[in-house]
Amino acid sequence: MSSVYGYHSVKEQLLNAANQVHRLVVLQGSHDRRRSELVSLAKSHSIRVQYVTRQALDRLCKGDNHQGLLIEIHDIRLRTEQELKQKIEGLQFPLLLVLEDLQDPGNVGACCRTASAVGIDAVILPKNRSGTLNATVLKTSSGTTKDLFIAQVSNLVRLMTWMKEQGVWVVGTTGSANQSYLDVDYAGSIAIVMGNEESGLRKLTKDVCDYLVQIPVKESVGSLNVSVATGVMLYEALRQRNSK
Amino acid sequence: MSSVYGYHSVKEQLLNAANQVHRLVVLQGSHDRRRSELVSLAKSHSIRVQYVTRQALDRLCKGDNHQGLLIEIHDIRLRTEQELKQKIEGLQFPLLLVLEDLQDPGNVGACCRTASAVGIDAVILPKNRSGTLNATVLKTSSGTTKDLFIAQVSNLVRLMTWMKEQGVWVVGTTGSANQSYLDVDYAGSIAIVMGNEESGLRKLTKDVCDYLVQIPVKESVGSLNVSVATGVMLYEALRQRNSK
Repeated sequence: MSSVYGYHSVKEQLLNAANQVHRLVVLQGSHDRRRSELVSLAKSHSIRVQYVTRQALDRLCKGDNHQGLLIEIHDIRLRTEQELKQKIEGLQFPLLLVLEDLQDPGNVGACCRTASAVGIDAVILPKNRSGTLNATVLKTSSGTTKDLFIAQVSNLVRLMTWMKEQGVWVVGTTGSANQSYLDVDYAGSIAIVMGNEESGLRKLTKDVCDYLVQIPVKESVGSLNVSVATGVMLYEALRQRNSK
Repeated sequence: MSSVYGYHSVKEQLLNAANQVHRLVVLQGSHDRRRSELVSLAKSHSIRVQYVTRQALDRLCKGDNHQGLLIEIHDIRLRTEQELKQKIEGLQFPLLLVLEDLQDPGNVGACCRTASAVGIDAVILPKNRSGTLNATVLKTSSGTTKDLFIAQVSNLVRLMTWMKEQGVWVVGTTGSANQSYLDVDYAGSIAIVMGNEESGLRKLTKDVCDYLVQIPVKESVGSLNVSVATGVMLYEALRQRNSK
């Protein structure tokens, strides 16, 4: 069980993925109009509503700002490598996102939200390394992970090698690449690989990529935030795929 | 004076904007290799280094995770409306970003970082409304705001009206628009306007825009994170401007 809190995140979750919600927890004695609307919304989905004291709510949110609202949700079901391979084999031109080594769960969540937005076929995470799919991820992705296919695999390099054998082009993003991200054709079967916030892609990962590309940034800036870079990559892929 | 902390942010600041740094504060008695490197880097820029206790550092960072490092930096100099207008009048085809009403300083910082990355001519914020340019902004923008021209104006609608009279096309981003962001020509004088995380653009702002555009998202997702949406907009503008 995970929890999501704050007005906007709770609303998104109720609007988009009410079926994942276990219960809505509301600050007792509050007569805020926005909160009342969400209570009605929850009840319309037959979600149990519970009123608690401020102390209890603070404790549930570990002191974070909850705006008087929290929902408990069933955890995202992570798919296995086997399920992922079956999915990829069943698609003509899959679009895939590999998050190699992200540390910040907020970044994982933001990338998942954008991946959902472009209708990606699967997000692939390494086991035990990336930011766990915890409450922060769910909060940042604002309940949009409902229909998202998220798989965890034990060896990313091995999986990428397998994907290449299936005809998937593997495109790694790294500031040191010579090629611009705009020079790649994203219309076919594509896996976009994003690396760690600080250190970028691992060497072994770079070696297995078909293309290494960079998003141009002014020299003084260094690099983009990884969730922004993921957005730029995925929307360029979508633009090309829709224009063909 | 503001402060920036955490290894990556401190490093970026030292690499990119050492001239803004007042002093480097380091946890005493620590022999971390990464920290020592940053101390050397600071000394090479003649920046004063001070060693303090964990309690002192915790207090300076208000309990946030500092990884044993903090720098104090001179605040960003916000430009006036007068300076902004002079700058716009001196440019042939300015590219401008207006952040109408952002609440989260982290989002303002991430948008500034992306704006720097594409070499924007100015970022425009409203007075007293948007997330202040405080330590969070600086931390998120990782010292990349050094060369960024950031102006605060008292009345955004009036400024946008003035910009239109100068031949700037004003493009507002809103989920309710009929037109895709890909259907606009960004090659000329362009101001891209992004709205509040939750409520989007204000009605008066929408009314003054030349174009209202949306970034396509799958229905179940609702909307993108505003810093991701800003990245998608700015990089599409850059793509078009570079291809002409």
